[in-house]
Amino acid sequence: MSSLEIKTSTNIYHVYVDVKLRHKLPSFLEKEYSNVLIITDSHVEKLFLDDVIHSFGTTTKVSYAVVPAGESSKSIENYFNLMTSAIENGLDRHSLIVALGGGMVGDLAGFVAATYMRGIDYVQVPTTILAHDSSVGGKVAINHPEGKNLIGNFYPPQAVVYDVETLNSLPEKEVRSGYAEIVKHGLISDEAFFNQVMEQNILSTFNPQILKKHLIKGISVKANIVETDEKEGNIRKYLNLGHTLGHALEAELGYGKITHGEAVALGMLFALQVSEKVYGVTLPYDTLYNWLSKNNYPLHLSRVDKYVLLNRMKKDKKSRDLKVQMVLLKAIGQSTIEQLDDEQLIQFLENFFRELVKG
Amino acid sequence: MSSLEIKTSTNIYHVYVDVKLRHKLPSFLEKEYSNVLIITDSHVEKLFLDDVIHSFGTTTKVSYAVVPAGESSKSIENYFNLMTSAIENGLDRHSLIVALGGGMVGDLAGFVAATYMRGIDYVQVPTTILAHDSSVGGKVAINHPEGKNLIGNFYPPQAVVYDVETLNSLPEKEVRSGYAEIVKHGLISDEAFFNQVMEQNILSTFNPQILKKHLIKGISVKANIVETDEKEGNIRKYLNLGHTLGHALEAELGYGKITHGEAVALGMLFALQVSEKVYGVTLPYDTLYNWLSKNNYPLHLSRVDKYVLLNRMKKDKKSRDLKVQMVLLKAIGQSTIEQLDDEQLIQFLENFFRELVKG
Repeated sequence: MSSLEIKTSTNIYHVYVDVKLRHKLPSFLEKEYSNVLIITDSHVEKLFLDDVIHSFGTTTKVSYAVVPAGESSKSIENYFNLMTSAIENGLDRHSLIVALGGGMVGDLAGFVAATYMRGIDYVQVPTTILAHDSSVGGKVAINHPEGKNLIGNFYPPQAVVYDVETLNSLPEKEVRSGYAEIVKHGLISDEAFFNQVMEQNILSTFNPQILKKHLIKGISVKANIVETDEKEGNIRKYLNLGHTLGHALEAELGYGKITHGEAVALGMLFALQVSEKVYGVTLPYDTLYNWLSKNNYPLHLSRVDKYVLLNRMKKDKKSRDLKVQMVLLKAIGQSTIEQLDDEQLIQFLENFFRELVKG
Repeated sequence: MSSLEIKTSTNIYHVYVDVKLRHKLPSFLEKEYSNVLIITDSHVEKLFLDDVIHSFGTTTKVSYAVVPAGESSKSIENYFNLMTSAIENGLDRHSLIVALGGGMVGDLAGFVAATYMRGIDYVQVPTTILAHDSSVGGKVAINHPEGKNLIGNFYPPQAVVYDVETLNSLPEKEVRSGYAEIVKHGLISDEAFFNQVMEQNILSTFNPQILKKHLIKGISVKANIVETDEKEGNIRKYLNLGHTLGHALEAELGYGKITHGEAVALGMLFALQVSEKVYGVTLPYDTLYNWLSKNNYPLHLSRVDKYVLLNRMKKDKKSRDLKVQMVLLKAIGQSTIEQLDDEQLIQFLENFFRELVKG
């Protein structure tokens, strides 16, 4: 059993990573709970809900609530309905919420837990690779029609219980989406780790031991940053590598057309190219490009207007005074934050997309 | 200028109490804010909104949002609409929300601030006596149709700016409602303070200096308890004196029929009587009864079914395993928590209402 300890300003919790953990969830909890509400989505429900229910045995009252799969479920309506479920199922301040699913479920169920009776315990049970990122760090939120994650809290879970076996069933694009964040954790922290990932074909050989190793390393990078900077001062912003363009692409192409990680992958390529130009350094642009290509990341986009992208990039929660801030690299493991002029950015975007098309 | 310092687990903030403070709000803030959203209700809007807007001068962007006066405005719909206002007015993580009004506005605007972009700064500007209680302690919430304050956070403000002059315009029942919590703060902490309040006719002589003294003392009692026990362990429960029956009466008679404080006043009388019987001590039941009577608190209720009240008391957020827990007193300043049997409680309720009717 591998476990990592994560310190926050309000608690310490553990992340457990191994196979078959969903069958023994209560053994990872430090308290006994007499009343548990499992929140999951319509996709994960069919695969793993029964396992998690049974893990609690017969002495615990276990109820569940299912929301439709997909990012649009992070709505105020579902949030309110889940509150109603919690009340109807008699949850009190000593009860537990289980977030069983990917990042969407983790964000939504975590925000319900954060605000039900001013905050009750919850545990993250991620079922995607991407959620190795979102399940650690305590960010929980729902969406507003005007923007993603605009309504939320910082609220750490009691534990993250990561059953690697549940990742077996992921479709390829979800594997790609999750691995992009693993690559990001390599780029901002550790060249050796980045190179290890670059040697791996992530589609053909699903090896739970390698995946487990990558997940643990990715989580530990994230955890280190979050421990240093829980509430998003400067250092936590490094986690945003690839996300400024990534979010803009996601929004512009339409959520669902390209996965979060696939968009971030393009954003990281862009950040590498901009970094090389701004700092006059050499970075593994080609290595990353080839790896993305080999693993079928979408690299050739239909024409995207660069002025429209620029405006999207300005809407980022992290932008100030309407200038775009990007995370760049002076070397692998040496992140920086740069504010970029509009003209400069347009030039960079033009180069980037021209070279991609050639590539 | 009188000010109190309040320490929480995440920050330190000040409570300022004096006349005319609404005209110089920015001078009590430790930061400059370029974008401010004032949230108020339809009643307070007419009286004080302009003063607060003008206090920010012309260099700050100030917008406002108004909800209907009354507890029913603490709804998920208003919460969501206020989020939309915040977005439309361009608030970012460095903006400020001003909660201008009584406890309802403080709870609602505070919860918006707590969850907008995972939490931005806010300042409480209370305009009722009752809000001396709710504006300190960091509890923010909205209501669910199934119960009050079921959705919320612990989220302290950056400051509480209490302009005593705004209390001039309060109707008598609001003065009674607020003073009940001041009396409570006396009962749970300080006999001399309790006696001072009992000497005061709160309706005929509105003296801002005496009121200011009482508010500061009440806030300091609350602040001491909240500093010791931010997240409602045992000690914070003492603040619940009079509230177990109080909440049941409010809910049973219908919100708006009796004010919160008026219901709590009856609850405190009940707690004094129960305490005398359980502990065999003598407490100032008659003193409090006479003071309440002199100040026109509603003491003679139309018939209330005691079994219905008992069931309401069991629904309290603080009840466990369906037994009623009450805050009692062994002496003034010596609070305790007792779990009471249903039969015993019914007997106590019967006695209490019989004596009230005689009184």
